[in-house]
Amino acid sequence: MEKRMKIAALAGGVGGAKLAYGLSKTLSNGQLSIIVNTGDDFELFGLYISPDVDTVCYTLAGLANPLTGWGQVDETWEVFQALSRIGGPNWFRLGDHDLALHMERTRLLHSGLSLTEVTQELCIRMGIKDHVYPMTDQPVRTIVNTVDKRKLQFQEYFVKEQCIPEVTGFEFSGIEEAKPGFYVIKTLTEADLIIICPSNPWVSIDPILKLSGIVEIIKKKIVVAVSPIIGGKTIKGPAAKMFLELGIEPGCFEVANHYKDFLKGFVLDSQDQEEASRVSDLGIIPFVTQTVMRSMDDRIRLANEVLEFGMNLFRKGI
Amino acid sequence: MEKRMKIAALAGGVGGAKLAYGLSKTLSNGQLSIIVNTGDDFELFGLYISPDVDTVCYTLAGLANPLTGWGQVDETWEVFQALSRIGGPNWFRLGDHDLALHMERTRLLHSGLSLTEVTQELCIRMGIKDHVYPMTDQPVRTIVNTVDKRKLQFQEYFVKEQCIPEVTGFEFSGIEEAKPGFYVIKTLTEADLIIICPSNPWVSIDPILKLSGIVEIIKKKIVVAVSPIIGGKTIKGPAAKMFLELGIEPGCFEVANHYKDFLKGFVLDSQDQEEASRVSDLGIIPFVTQTVMRSMDDRIRLANEVLEFGMNLFRKGI
Repeated sequence: MEKRMKIAALAGGVGGAKLAYGLSKTLSNGQLSIIVNTGDDFELFGLYISPDVDTVCYTLAGLANPLTGWGQVDETWEVFQALSRIGGPNWFRLGDHDLALHMERTRLLHSGLSLTEVTQELCIRMGIKDHVYPMTDQPVRTIVNTVDKRKLQFQEYFVKEQCIPEVTGFEFSGIEEAKPGFYVIKTLTEADLIIICPSNPWVSIDPILKLSGIVEIIKKKIVVAVSPIIGGKTIKGPAAKMFLELGIEPGCFEVANHYKDFLKGFVLDSQDQEEASRVSDLGIIPFVTQTVMRSMDDRIRLANEVLEFGMNLFRKGI
Repeated sequence: MEKRMKIAALAGGVGGAKLAYGLSKTLSNGQLSIIVNTGDDFELFGLYISPDVDTVCYTLAGLANPLTGWGQVDETWEVFQALSRIGGPNWFRLGDHDLALHMERTRLLHSGLSLTEVTQELCIRMGIKDHVYPMTDQPVRTIVNTVDKRKLQFQEYFVKEQCIPEVTGFEFSGIEEAKPGFYVIKTLTEADLIIICPSNPWVSIDPILKLSGIVEIIKKKIVVAVSPIIGGKTIKGPAAKMFLELGIEPGCFEVANHYKDFLKGFVLDSQDQEEASRVSDLGIIPFVTQTVMRSMDDRIRLANEVLEFGMNLFRKGI
């Protein structure tokens, strides 16, 4: 990968963070900017928690817990246990080391910095060499509409109710008023290649895409997506279940279809290679490879393949 | 002590909490109400911290750290260490178990409860049988004026700068607008005896006294104070140093003198018995005993003596 090429990645939580890690290991300092969903952000105990930004940062910093997919490795639970003892809510498990980050983020936000500035500061302190940009500094909150007519905050749906309620759709409260971050616009405008990581299209990538001006910019760019759905299922998270509940057959084709207005290339798993021709029929160039990232090596191999695929499209002027 | 008698105590941190503990062990359920200074309250990491209320509650609940005088016993420091690792401020030591309480308090405050309601709820959860009332639900903040013309927030002075700066006076920001808590007024109005615990007159008791209407109520009552100054010194805290810096000889006489507008009885240590006649000359009845509370038994003995002294004044109609 030529060092002057600029790569932007759009990511949500775990799956997105894994590919971001591979990209980080493959690319040089300053080449990679990761734009992260903040629709899952919320406040608990007065602390500002940004789950997707944390997962991306912990993963890039080598601090992520490989077993849970969230939180930090070698975590301790003193505060969480003390909270339970005094009758505090315990549906959102906050480890001590994770909590320290939420506290410091909250302190910096209260001191007047924006979420973008705070994230940059915390990335430096965690030794992250890449740019991590929250999609916006304004509050956008993903609301999950359920079949029993409830409107759940995302973390209520995802953590408290463990994705059990049947969904009928999503809202992104505040999306009309929110502006994409200054560096989000700059990153996308200057990017030679934009990679949509294997994150949930409905609740991780759509909030980013629905910010004003984003689709207009990326329509002019080489955008490549990696399917988060493999063999009709997800590695982690409720994406496949959401497709089903929305009446759409969960499969990688439908992911490509979801992004068809701007997608140039689509990376799908070898298990799904019979879908490649349907993807082609959408006018999107398919690329078939092993997309499951079990090991650190898998992340780097997949990142290299995605970058090569994308840069080939770039060179061909697609 | 007759069970129908109602006792109100005014308290700040450590010294006040020790006598409150003795009173709690001596009095029946519902007999004792402790009105606590909130001038030291502050926010850190977005969390609402109420140091004097915490010290009183931890002490009553048997959770206080007997070595430090603040925080909880058997504390762990995972979050504090993690904060230091990521470059967060570490001048205010927050233990994990202590932190859990600040988080739950902040959560309850954000849910719309007042500080009084939150304190009541947390007391119930901690198994405290007595009433603990923050002096007000509105923000009052003690500001320490220093000889080098700085205005320090109390915790900056007390913890960050370890009481080293020379003081020239105190301000209580917000005191004009703040109203004493509803139950503070009710408690003082209904009290048969009001005890001023051995707390710092300048920064623990004065904020309570300066709330509108408090002195007017207690002037009509039997008020007894226990000297926080013994042999010209304090057991803990900067009270004696503050007296000196304000140009007043630190001694128990000056404590009685400070409260002379409403004080009926004054408890001073055997070391200071030669001050008793000067206290009498102020029109305040002195009572000499051992006031140092080294053991739990000391707290209970002193509490019993103070109650008996106060109730004697009450019976004599002083």
